[in-house]
Amino acid sequence: MTNSIEMQVAAAVDEKRLWDRLMSMSEYGATPAGGVNRQALSAEDIAARRQMKKWADEYGFEITTDDIGNLFVRRDGTDADQNPVTTGSHIDSQPKGGKFDGIYGVMAGLEALVAMEDAGIQTKRPIEVIAWMGEEGSRFQPALMGSLVFTGQLAAEKAMSVADSNGISVEQALRETLDADPEIGRRPTGFAAAAYIETHIEQGPVLELEQKTIGVVTGIQGIRWYGIEVLGEEAHAGTSPMKHRKDALKAAAEMVGALEQVMEDETDTVRCTFGRFEVFPGSPNTVPGRVFFTIDFRHPVTDDFEKLAAKIEPTCRAHARGCEVNIEITLDALPTVFRDDMVETVHKHTKSLNPPFKVMPSGGGHDAQNMNRICPTGMIFVPCKNGISHNEAEYASPGDLAAGTRVLAACLVDLANR
Amino acid sequence: MTNSIEMQVAAAVDEKRLWDRLMSMSEYGATPAGGVNRQALSAEDIAARRQMKKWADEYGFEITTDDIGNLFVRRDGTDADQNPVTTGSHIDSQPKGGKFDGIYGVMAGLEALVAMEDAGIQTKRPIEVIAWMGEEGSRFQPALMGSLVFTGQLAAEKAMSVADSNGISVEQALRETLDADPEIGRRPTGFAAAAYIETHIEQGPVLELEQKTIGVVTGIQGIRWYGIEVLGEEAHAGTSPMKHRKDALKAAAEMVGALEQVMEDETDTVRCTFGRFEVFPGSPNTVPGRVFFTIDFRHPVTDDFEKLAAKIEPTCRAHARGCEVNIEITLDALPTVFRDDMVETVHKHTKSLNPPFKVMPSGGGHDAQNMNRICPTGMIFVPCKNGISHNEAEYASPGDLAAGTRVLAACLVDLANR
Repeated sequence: MTNSIEMQVAAAVDEKRLWDRLMSMSEYGATPAGGVNRQALSAEDIAARRQMKKWADEYGFEITTDDIGNLFVRRDGTDADQNPVTTGSHIDSQPKGGKFDGIYGVMAGLEALVAMEDAGIQTKRPIEVIAWMGEEGSRFQPALMGSLVFTGQLAAEKAMSVADSNGISVEQALRETLDADPEIGRRPTGFAAAAYIETHIEQGPVLELEQKTIGVVTGIQGIRWYGIEVLGEEAHAGTSPMKHRKDALKAAAEMVGALEQVMEDETDTVRCTFGRFEVFPGSPNTVPGRVFFTIDFRHPVTDDFEKLAAKIEPTCRAHARGCEVNIEITLDALPTVFRDDMVETVHKHTKSLNPPFKVMPSGGGHDAQNMNRICPTGMIFVPCKNGISHNEAEYASPGDLAAGTRVLAACLVDLANR
Repeated sequence: MTNSIEMQVAAAVDEKRLWDRLMSMSEYGATPAGGVNRQALSAEDIAARRQMKKWADEYGFEITTDDIGNLFVRRDGTDADQNPVTTGSHIDSQPKGGKFDGIYGVMAGLEALVAMEDAGIQTKRPIEVIAWMGEEGSRFQPALMGSLVFTGQLAAEKAMSVADSNGISVEQALRETLDADPEIGRRPTGFAAAAYIETHIEQGPVLELEQKTIGVVTGIQGIRWYGIEVLGEEAHAGTSPMKHRKDALKAAAEMVGALEQVMEDETDTVRCTFGRFEVFPGSPNTVPGRVFFTIDFRHPVTDDFEKLAAKIEPTCRAHARGCEVNIEITLDALPTVFRDDMVETVHKHTKSLNPPFKVMPSGGGHDAQNMNRICPTGMIFVPCKNGISHNEAEYASPGDLAAGTRVLAACLVDLANR
């Protein structure tokens, strides 16, 4: 480890302080089973924001919020005219979420700023830690709402009119959230960022299985959802000859097998899941006349994504066995590919800090995929136990969380001095 | 057509009279959609029994009922000491049943007796037309209740205590039914029959597809039901590597494909149906952790039935792909094989009457499978439109119904003179 200023800041990252802040945050929305339920713009979210303000005030960092409820904690640079380098993640959680998903990226950013204070290091550019509003999409849809509006992909007016299951609109919930702490300053939504870098738990088992501490993230895999309806003919299981049947279940099962072959991949990069699979009428002695199933297909490389996705519909049709097949795409996001220089920045500082690491794509979606549209973007992963996330049992170790924060701190200082 | 007494009686069968009686019966429990809902021992059943008594009285046939509610219409033979030849089927229907399932076999039997009257023909043995109680099993389980008790396979006390979904027991419903028409004589349950021969609609499409009028039935296929539970592991569709998954859906789909191969059969005799197929938790982006599916397996030949059935469990286990597999047999009935001389009797008179015919097993279960345990038994099928049964749209043509009745009448006279 050289004595560069990046390494000095990394060394100032305090594992215990980071952990204690994470545990403090997990009290806002704590569930009896040890998880967190902290919905976007809820009372628990408001309390967590208030805690953020206390910490920002403690170090003299400016704290502001934009019109869609994204929260910003800023450490000034020496050159106030420069666009800021940004980091962050989200405060909101799944209804039965864990203590790390999202909030880790926010606390890691804050800890990096504090480490810079402790190390007495100034950067040229300001650095801003962002807590994106409504990443999970569990209260308000779509998911990633705050970063979608920030990056101009979703109109603020459209977002404002979205209501939760109780009929409370984003607009109303936002007003309550912003009114609750008027000392948090206001700013317009959207600004030019020099870069964005997000730390997150992996939410999968790969790092743990391969005993790696850091994931150097290359991008976010593309995802496409299909709804497949197979329409055959109901018939009597005892009397209807097999050769005359149009059995929707047998056709659908054959489609699953054929798609498995199409998706076969030595490198284990493809993800293909048949999560919903419903069979009608569902009586033991009636030949199924209708099956509806979903395909969740993901791949991180755009070419392969498109090439494999293009085989899904013809494969289903080729195995219809006389049934009618209706195919609908219900979700579609092409792969996000981070710029090489951003992946290289994370890679370089990871190597300097020397934890075991793996270069890998992200399996889940993140606000980073929206920021990647407006500025150079990267991500840093740390392991989570058994790959479990979106679950109250979610766990990541203090050491791994600190390791990810050290890489982040080094990257931020590096990027903020460019 | 020779002028044998069998052919004389067959010629006396009156197509219009048979059809009119069937249509009269279909008014008891008529549904708005043109079907029939006539549950065992219901008010509709009681009304149909009263109509049976009127017809029996008209021709001087004795009408009696036994202690489980089976109804008997008897035409005496010349030798009162001889065991009767029997025929029949059932009056009860599915909740959304048709106008022919069951009741056709009873009306065909009655028409055969009347044809003997009209032809002025005496038989040596008496002939009894039986309406079995509770064949469908839709109100009281098990199905085939009346013939199970009659043939000593189900204790009467056990049957009596069975309750319907409203808590009304067979005992109570029987008392009401028998009290409703005290002029119908009582007799003990069970007697020695010389033979039993049942006419029924095919309830499948084979005769229609092959343009045959008569099915010479060789037996009733064996049936075995399996419940298969496949236990894998839930995982995140985006982050969980394919190689580490235990995907219950993919395993179950592979089992279906493998079982299809095991059951492959050029002669199209095997029946194998996966009617229920339930996948949990059923979320598009969660790898299924549990699948439950049923197998309905049928074959008419005992050896083949046993040989193929023996492959089901090992095939499922061979394709478990790391999942746990739990297998339960929930229904089990070996094939029923009718005696050659009974099949030959039906065959012979069918050939004499000369309709197009097919020698075939029965796909569905019938009271004949119980009678086959105590006396020589046979069955005669006629086509039903599109193979549809257990459905308000069930239909059979007057001409086909009469053709089946002619074969029955000839067989009954033949058997009753042996």
